[in-house]
Amino acid sequence: MSSAVKKTDVKKVVLAYSGGLDTSAIIPWLKETYDNCEIVAFCADVGQGEEELEGLHEKALASGASECHIVDLKEEFVADYIYPTIATGAIYEGTYLLGTSMARPIIAKAQVEVARKVGADAVCHGCTGKGNDQVRFEGCFAALAPDLKVIAPWREWEMRSREDLLDYLAERNIKTTASATKIYSRDANAWHISHEGGELEDPWNEPSKGVWTLTVAPEDAPNEPEYVSLAIKNGRITHVNDEALTPYAALMKLNDIAGKHGVGRIDITENRLVGMKSRGCYETPGGTVMFAGLRAIEELVLDKTSRTWREQIAGQMAHLVYDGRWFTPLCNSLIAASESLAELVNGDVVIKLYKGQATPVKKRSPNSLYSEDFATFGEDDVYDQKHAEGFIRLYSLASRIRALSTK
Amino acid sequence: MSSAVKKTDVKKVVLAYSGGLDTSAIIPWLKETYDNCEIVAFCADVGQGEEELEGLHEKALASGASECHIVDLKEEFVADYIYPTIATGAIYEGTYLLGTSMARPIIAKAQVEVARKVGADAVCHGCTGKGNDQVRFEGCFAALAPDLKVIAPWREWEMRSREDLLDYLAERNIKTTASATKIYSRDANAWHISHEGGELEDPWNEPSKGVWTLTVAPEDAPNEPEYVSLAIKNGRITHVNDEALTPYAALMKLNDIAGKHGVGRIDITENRLVGMKSRGCYETPGGTVMFAGLRAIEELVLDKTSRTWREQIAGQMAHLVYDGRWFTPLCNSLIAASESLAELVNGDVVIKLYKGQATPVKKRSPNSLYSEDFATFGEDDVYDQKHAEGFIRLYSLASRIRALSTK
Amino acid sequence: MSSAVKKTDVKKVVLAYSGGLDTSAIIPWLKETYDNCEIVAFCADVGQGEEELEGLHEKALASGASECHIVDLKEEFVADYIYPTIATGAIYEGTYLLGTSMARPIIAKAQVEVARKVGADAVCHGCTGKGNDQVRFEGCFAALAPDLKVIAPWREWEMRSREDLLDYLAERNIKTTASATKIYSRDANAWHISHEGGELEDPWNEPSKGVWTLTVAPEDAPNEPEYVSLAIKNGRITHVNDEALTPYAALMKLNDIAGKHGVGRIDITENRLVGMKSRGCYETPGGTVMFAGLRAIEELVLDKTSRTWREQIAGQMAHLVYDGRWFTPLCNSLIAASESLAELVNGDVVIKLYKGQATPVKKRSPNSLYSEDFATFGEDDVYDQKHAEGFIRLYSLASRIRALSTK
Amino acid sequence: MSSAVKKTDVKKVVLAYSGGLDTSAIIPWLKETYDNCEIVAFCADVGQGEEELEGLHEKALASGASECHIVDLKEEFVADYIYPTIATGAIYEGTYLLGTSMARPIIAKAQVEVARKVGADAVCHGCTGKGNDQVRFEGCFAALAPDLKVIAPWREWEMRSREDLLDYLAERNIKTTASATKIYSRDANAWHISHEGGELEDPWNEPSKGVWTLTVAPEDAPNEPEYVSLAIKNGRITHVNDEALTPYAALMKLNDIAGKHGVGRIDITENRLVGMKSRGCYETPGGTVMFAGLRAIEELVLDKTSRTWREQIAGQMAHLVYDGRWFTPLCNSLIAASESLAELVNGDVVIKLYKGQATPVKKRSPNSLYSEDFATFGEDDVYDQKHAEGFIRLYSLASRIRALSTK
Repeated sequence: MSSAVKKTDVKKVVLAYSGGLDTSAIIPWLKETYDNCEIVAFCADVGQGEEELEGLHEKALASGASECHIVDLKEEFVADYIYPTIATGAIYEGTYLLGTSMARPIIAKAQVEVARKVGADAVCHGCTGKGNDQVRFEGCFAALAPDLKVIAPWREWEMRSREDLLDYLAERNIKTTASATKIYSRDANAWHISHEGGELEDPWNEPSKGVWTLTVAPEDAPNEPEYVSLAIKNGRITHVNDEALTPYAALMKLNDIAGKHGVGRIDITENRLVGMKSRGCYETPGGTVMFAGLRAIEELVLDKTSRTWREQIAGQMAHLVYDGRWFTPLCNSLIAASESLAELVNGDVVIKLYKGQATPVKKRSPNSLYSEDFATFGEDDVYDQKHAEGFIRLYSLASRIRALSTK
Repeated sequence: MSSAVKKTDVKKVVLAYSGGLDTSAIIPWLKETYDNCEIVAFCADVGQGEEELEGLHEKALASGASECHIVDLKEEFVADYIYPTIATGAIYEGTYLLGTSMARPIIAKAQVEVARKVGADAVCHGCTGKGNDQVRFEGCFAALAPDLKVIAPWREWEMRSREDLLDYLAERNIKTTASATKIYSRDANAWHISHEGGELEDPWNEPSKGVWTLTVAPEDAPNEPEYVSLAIKNGRITHVNDEALTPYAALMKLNDIAGKHGVGRIDITENRLVGMKSRGCYETPGGTVMFAGLRAIEELVLDKTSRTWREQIAGQMAHLVYDGRWFTPLCNSLIAASESLAELVNGDVVIKLYKGQATPVKKRSPNSLYSEDFATFGEDDVYDQKHAEGFIRLYSLASRIRALSTK
Repeated sequence: MSSAVKKTDVKKVVLAYSGGLDTSAIIPWLKETYDNCEIVAFCADVGQGEEELEGLHEKALASGASECHIVDLKEEFVADYIYPTIATGAIYEGTYLLGTSMARPIIAKAQVEVARKVGADAVCHGCTGKGNDQVRFEGCFAALAPDLKVIAPWREWEMRSREDLLDYLAERNIKTTASATKIYSRDANAWHISHEGGELEDPWNEPSKGVWTLTVAPEDAPNEPEYVSLAIKNGRITHVNDEALTPYAALMKLNDIAGKHGVGRIDITENRLVGMKSRGCYETPGGTVMFAGLRAIEELVLDKTSRTWREQIAGQMAHLVYDGRWFTPLCNSLIAASESLAELVNGDVVIKLYKGQATPVKKRSPNSLYSEDFATFGEDDVYDQKHAEGFIRLYSLASRIRALSTK
Repeated sequence: MSSAVKKTDVKKVVLAYSGGLDTSAIIPWLKETYDNCEIVAFCADVGQGEEELEGLHEKALASGASECHIVDLKEEFVADYIYPTIATGAIYEGTYLLGTSMARPIIAKAQVEVARKVGADAVCHGCTGKGNDQVRFEGCFAALAPDLKVIAPWREWEMRSREDLLDYLAERNIKTTASATKIYSRDANAWHISHEGGELEDPWNEPSKGVWTLTVAPEDAPNEPEYVSLAIKNGRITHVNDEALTPYAALMKLNDIAGKHGVGRIDITENRLVGMKSRGCYETPGGTVMFAGLRAIEELVLDKTSRTWREQIAGQMAHLVYDGRWFTPLCNSLIAASESLAELVNGDVVIKLYKGQATPVKKRSPNSLYSEDFATFGEDDVYDQKHAEGFIRLYSLASRIRALSTK
């Protein structure tokens, strides 16, 4: 038993419920383990897809939950979690666009809100004891509701496999459509889908075609490139191909377009927060295009020192989001720093999609520091080539003095 | 006149000579301007291509140089300048692999060595007064030979265009095959080629097909992917497709393979060191593959904190190399830090090349921290899922205390 | 002549005027050099002291200025320039509290405002060509008024010494009370005074007693310590010894108290922005106490990651302020990041002043994360010692795996 | 029972033994708990003082240990752990010179070596479950000897106070001279002593005189300052007052001199690695002087960018050492970076000690970049004041362009 939770203390639990095998087994297990406590199923709609939510309410009640709350967070997820993150430029360990990580704080927050509404004294999640998500959820719970008990069945019970769970449900005559074998472990939301397990467990295996679900293989993508235009205001995409769209709608549209061109696949062996490495394949089609668009405008509007600073914010934010530290003063500070710079990130960019690549090919901005007049050869008032001599002399003065002093 | 150089002080100048229009005009100009001084032409072979070097010796003498030194730096360039840089992971402003920047210090160093050998009292380069290269060259000269005078004709003379130069040569009856119009300004070496000018001056223009020279367009690349394998030892590529190769030979081979697949194109609007922005297109086919290979092995061998640190080194190194600060204590320190980590960067990686993309699809390392045993579900001695609870409690303790304190 | 300014272009100049020898000579020199242009004297009162301002108006007109504007910036200087800077924790090269640097942007801004009001077409400063201040002033002018011409007489004229200036004035029958010998070069404002020159030119010389002006020698300070209390709200000192004070008044009071105890002296050989080193002695009595007070509260309220981030902001801000980049997007971003954290910096601190030291000895905060309950030995709900095992196992997991893998 | 250690697995334990109450009770407890296992007492002499080691051997055997190994690590501690750390400039959270932290890895390493020599299968320490030291020791054990079992009695047993321990020993008729009340918890070595507990538990209490043991109160220090000179070579102190001394001897001598002047006291509320805050008072008399000496030479020899980088290394190193990550690739990389810079840290410094302050007042270095010639007013070849104009124009060019573009 978890040292933190006494079984008799728990009267009502809000469970982060997906309708999958794990959380279906958790409902009876919680009741048995925690003195027939009441279970309120909770599901955050962060864009994981209609089919994931279909029939969820009935299923939850059939499994023994007293209520089922499905909360639509799709627009808020994109507007208030994804945008502040991608504005910083955060990428975890060089490639991962933080799809699962960004969803955790908004889900945890909504789960706590349900817990407050129904007067629950505990929250429960179905994350395993080896992953990052347990840390992210529980880190958010600690920040938002330190008084709520947290139950993590995978760290408590003795079951270790899907077979164990199926046996557990069978013993209790609870029906499930789940099968014993499931090759990949997946997590989906509006921004991305992740894939782990199966042949991916060996980094010496190339991912097979069956891994990917949101994007076509580059080989199967159209032989003609497609161009998509983004209008960007204060670091947010406002229009796609000249159509004004909400944050979520823009992402959906770009997912559709980019997925057809095989854009947004990555394959990474990453450092989990809990100290081990894992290998995963992630698909972020629309997000990859959005990210490229923001960076393209930044090329025009950030000067050298500002851009370097933006990279430092990005590095901090990547770890913060990955590590589940969203509800912290550090996060507030990083976002404040980033939003200040994002005031400059305005303009238009055209991105070419072709066989897995998203390449910005045209970009312009009212805040652009680029000027053909300054960069090219002609005379101008702003830059006199003779100035360069003085610049160089002072810029290299420390080197010169060092060389002269040590001669 | 440059305030730093008195015309009568200069007796013998070593000129960084390419045989192009600019440096061809510089030879007579130097003689006229600096009291008929002696000109020693110097050309560094950093892999810019045979055709660039052909007939260079004769051409230099014909233009009025007393000697012409062509120094083969190809292997040293890759081994001692490129490798230490890419081991750090340095990328300038998100995309630029520093192809021109890395060549400057080795060229400057060799130029100084020639100056010492021939007893010159000045060095001269043909860089314009608006670019980075003048700063890089002169920064290296300041560090290596602060006593040598530096002559930068483009900052001194009144000529401003190719027409001006052609007129200048015509007036002196010096023959040249150069034409008045040259769309793009280019710089090539073993690692890359850069393109500036022409329609690229407007970032709202997509680069035309005529820009690129080292790589085919992704659309024109083979419809079948190709796999290339790299063996890596201490952060250096030792074998390509199981063939042991010198650093330069490996790069050449990869340039050839990757170029055929359209790999290694970038299009960037960057912050020049001199404070303005410029837009350039760069091709780094083999280098892009090398870079991806190193990062792939790092995924296996660097833990979370080491990788974060490696990114900080990369950020510093990118600016240092771009800014021409190679011969500084900072550079030594960065390389020492990076080489220490590179001792772990050993293994094999297979990279898929297809239509402009280089994707590592298989990777393994004797130093790998990844273990299927630890990452997956089964029991093990190393990681007990119950440990996670304690980890999470302490990891989120500050958040919990903050929440409790401010309730 | 400066390449940037044609002499006949200048009709009206706003001169940053101090009444000292340099700027007194600049007035006639400007008129002679720039075709009898009109000179508007401008003096920013940033707390440099009554005696510096006394009779300034008359003196300026007597020297040939048509007007003299003295602008009181004392409160704004402390509130809007000093506080945002010290909230970040910025210290240049380990010791320098940026006293001169912080004053430059507010002075430049006010000077531009005067220039706009009087319809001037140029601004002029009396900074030498070897120091930082020319870069700071002109960097601010470039950001705020790129159309204004900038005149820097020390880089233009041939005079090089106080004697030269005295001769220049004598030739023109302009009276001055300045003497030919002035041991130290000083800059003062509400925050600090700097001293350079004299025996300080050799870092192997201990500063003599005559250097210091704002503080007594520690040896001459009282033999009894004095305690001063600060109340702090959002990173600002609101009360000193329980007395509510404006930002400027608080600083003045602390200058007085701390100066009597010899607090706030530093002696530094620093890297100037222009590439050379200089040695200076600085006195910042009240500022040192303020700085210590803010850091003391931070000890209570910032968690480990927030504090680390605050140090990164500090490092950036120190260089930004020193380098004169105040009016930039980077500065806005740094301040946004810092002010976000400063919302937590609330509380009281008691600082002991004794013989040159300012030591916080008591501190408390409503946002404190410190709790005797958690830190000491007893049982508590928040921290179970058994949690530590799990924490340690995961915290050291990468090391364990590395050790096991390489056995 | 710790989940990681089965009681019957343990045959022979090496215990980090101090002779204090805790570790005296651990010996019988281990035997009772772990099936009468053999206990080898181990004590690292890191300069904690003669009195701490006196009679330790006899005491250990009397308590039931089979052997007692006292290992002299004093010189190695200073040379190989302290120097590499202070060369980086590492200070934890602004003030803490890492005295306890730096000792942990060398002790852990020596303890593992004893374990290997005597064929032990477990190591044991007396650290509490709320502190940093358990993480540091066990992190080092994980890196050096992942196969050894680790026993942490304070996390296993039910005792929670000194009374509990005294009762435990009394029940077993084991004599001890320990008393039930001990105001402060202390840790000492050659570099420092730490004090926690007692009135310090409330940060609103000023530390009382009884806290401090290594230094006199500034009020009680001599009324005359004392000057001490250090000769420094590659970042190491080689001579104190012109006397060549080993690293440890130099530290001892400086402890003696500086302690008399009240130098090296700090009072900090710090973030523990385990997520809570604690308040401690630390004395580092000689170390404070050494640290100041190294920084003084750096002022002369590091240029602006090198110094900034050195600060980044310092920030990383401070957390690494505090967090117990000594035996990691990250540590090797940080030290490599730092030692590269330390090659420049050569010279002499004179430090004034007076009433709690250590102030470098004279400094010189063969690698100095400071030159009176360059910094002062006269003409020189190296720096032409006219160069400054060009520098400023390019340095502020991005600001100018931004201002012009957005007008």
